[in-house]
Amino acid sequence: MKSDLDQLMKANSADALWISGSAINNPPMVYLTGGIHMTGGDLFYIPGRKPVFFHGAMERDEAAKTGYRLISYSSYDPKAFLAAANGDRAEAIALRYRQMMIDAGITRGKVILYGSREVGPFYSLVKRLQELLPEVEFSGDVTDTIMLEARATKSPDEIERIRQMGKLTVRVVQNTLDFLVGHKVKNETLVKTNGSPLTIGDVKTRISLWIAEYGAETPEKTIFAIGRDAGVPHSEGTASDPIKLGQTIVYDIFPAEKGGGYFYDFTRTWSLGYATDEVQKTYDDVFKTYNTVVSELKQGVNFHDYQNRTCDLFEAMGHETIRQNLKVENGYVHSLGHGVGLNVHEKPACGRPEDPTHILKPGSVITIEPGLYYPDRGYGIRLEDTYYIDEHGTFHTFVDFPLDLVMPMAGG
Amino acid sequence: MKSDLDQLMKANSADALWISGSAINNPPMVYLTGGIHMTGGDLFYIPGRKPVFFHGAMERDEAAKTGYRLISYSSYDPKAFLAAANGDRAEAIALRYRQMMIDAGITRGKVILYGSREVGPFYSLVKRLQELLPEVEFSGDVTDTIMLEARATKSPDEIERIRQMGKLTVRVVQNTLDFLVGHKVKNETLVKTNGSPLTIGDVKTRISLWIAEYGAETPEKTIFAIGRDAGVPHSEGTASDPIKLGQTIVYDIFPAEKGGGYFYDFTRTWSLGYATDEVQKTYDDVFKTYNTVVSELKQGVNFHDYQNRTCDLFEAMGHETIRQNLKVENGYVHSLGHGVGLNVHEKPACGRPEDPTHILKPGSVITIEPGLYYPDRGYGIRLEDTYYIDEHGTFHTFVDFPLDLVMPMAGG
Repeated sequence: MKSDLDQLMKANSADALWISGSAINNPPMVYLTGGIHMTGGDLFYIPGRKPVFFHGAMERDEAAKTGYRLISYSSYDPKAFLAAANGDRAEAIALRYRQMMIDAGITRGKVILYGSREVGPFYSLVKRLQELLPEVEFSGDVTDTIMLEARATKSPDEIERIRQMGKLTVRVVQNTLDFLVGHKVKNETLVKTNGSPLTIGDVKTRISLWIAEYGAETPEKTIFAIGRDAGVPHSEGTASDPIKLGQTIVYDIFPAEKGGGYFYDFTRTWSLGYATDEVQKTYDDVFKTYNTVVSELKQGVNFHDYQNRTCDLFEAMGHETIRQNLKVENGYVHSLGHGVGLNVHEKPACGRPEDPTHILKPGSVITIEPGLYYPDRGYGIRLEDTYYIDEHGTFHTFVDFPLDLVMPMAGG
Repeated sequence: MKSDLDQLMKANSADALWISGSAINNPPMVYLTGGIHMTGGDLFYIPGRKPVFFHGAMERDEAAKTGYRLISYSSYDPKAFLAAANGDRAEAIALRYRQMMIDAGITRGKVILYGSREVGPFYSLVKRLQELLPEVEFSGDVTDTIMLEARATKSPDEIERIRQMGKLTVRVVQNTLDFLVGHKVKNETLVKTNGSPLTIGDVKTRISLWIAEYGAETPEKTIFAIGRDAGVPHSEGTASDPIKLGQTIVYDIFPAEKGGGYFYDFTRTWSLGYATDEVQKTYDDVFKTYNTVVSELKQGVNFHDYQNRTCDLFEAMGHETIRQNLKVENGYVHSLGHGVGLNVHEKPACGRPEDPTHILKPGSVITIEPGLYYPDRGYGIRLEDTYYIDEHGTFHTFVDFPLDLVMPMAGG
């Protein structure tokens, strides 16, 4: 949580954070500004002091929403810095930033750099600043032990924002289901009113429109994949594929608040009309594993332990797993889940068992998404919900939605 | 144009370009890869050689579309580099990049950094690489004299992609107009079927949906502003404002290809039902100025000369201009236009008359957008089209759309 930042900085010998760039689609800036509409800024965070926020003059009102100490870029006269730099524009920028850092009270100590922006000019700027302020040490948080560590546990207001995305997600998913089952069927294929087959591309267009209509966005693509594509976890689906009865559809949707805010992550697998015996049996294995793992979730346990438990369960059912074979393509081929927040994938992860940052604790928001994939037999199955852990250590889903496989067509 | 890159590199003593990050929403990478769907990569461009493209193993097929020399990150064994770095993860990454640069054939000379990504880890990486490869000099293109200079003139395929965005734009604008004039009017206010006033927010929701439906996006916000807001060029409009007859609506729309591709930029000013005499007179001044400037456009002239010409014309009509008063708020308050491409604002600009990079030439794509603003009298007017210069030096619009001010309501 944000309140952990000072302690994490201390543990990493960091004296200040410098977050740079837009407050849109820039998670570190969104995290510390709350998601205002600003196209650029430089935020300096020092424990025990009011953060200092440098902003464009036109964006003053947005910047003021943070409650931080504001300094407008326009208070630095460009002509004076250009003169001091003998007309060298790059040097004038460095001199101005030197003065900004002095005004923010940072003239020594370790400054950690965050934010997404054009790297080239920024690299040149910081390299020169390093010479101009030799007692400051600039560096990146290469091992993600400060900001992403703080972000790994969520506060109640972050939980609430993620829940709103969850509600929006199941609304879109319900719309998608209603849309699908309302179609006529001809030769096992869903057909549009003009008689042509309904395709994956048609459905994806609808999904995008619903997400936009409800005010969210999909910075990463929605997965809506049928048949063999459903058996390949990273396939997004093929736009021209027709939608047929009795084939698995993996529908993995992860919208975010507009402007680069909080994500939600959710997957269902559907087989329209009916399911083959083999698919039904494999689905039952995923469903049982999902329920077993969810029922066993406890705080204080490393997320990786549940990856192991999932492998135990799938292997006992006769499926090959990634634990047995890193290159497995048939069976259980990925990890059980990941943290969700301003990035769709963030801490905790279940990859590194020796890393204490992956221990589940109050405020953790994670996905649980076991799956089984048999691309050569033309199917794949995955079930996924996003969970959070409350202050008492109890796990909760954000929203409920049936996990069922077979979706009867409305026409019967 | 891309074909100017080698010459521009030579003029700036640059030996290689290193473009880093996603191929989505990252203009330098989009420019050199053509807009493939890749979440990350490192591209090294050296004149006279095939560019070297480092990519994730799963994104090999997308990377292959570039025709570049491909090297998968997975060909570097992480365990070997971690061992060589004595378990230090940041050092292991630096050692791997050192090897990648050697494999790309870059061990000396000036390497210019491009691309948008998290600056902190990248700064630490390059700082360490600078020590590991002391004969290489890393720097940013702080004064934008290489890549943005090449991008300032467009090739025929880029012109065509911008034209497609232009077609999409006028389709959305026509939809917007049809939507507006189809409404009933009560007390000079457009009303919805439920009797409540149609608002700016309602219209903006429609605009967003049409843009999404036609497969584009609006990474920057659409301006749809009425009355006093129309008189403030950077106002996006107030969502709760009702739409009334006889008030100016400034509609400035700049959609882009999905994933951070080419933009189009377009503005019309409408007054629904009728216009007041004052607005009509001021509109006529803008319309005349627009037509005069467009009729005089010539290649080989610095864009800034047309800003001067626009000020001449407006001042002769009795309007104050930004040339007379940098802080002007009533009259002509901005510049005549800007280049358009993978950024909505790029070179050429009309701000710096002494800079030869702003000379208009074949391949230039620019907006022409004179306007007059009188916020205290409750209106503003701007007309804008995007133009390109063909290989013979002739200026063309991309699409045509009427410039008219008064839009009669369908009910008469």
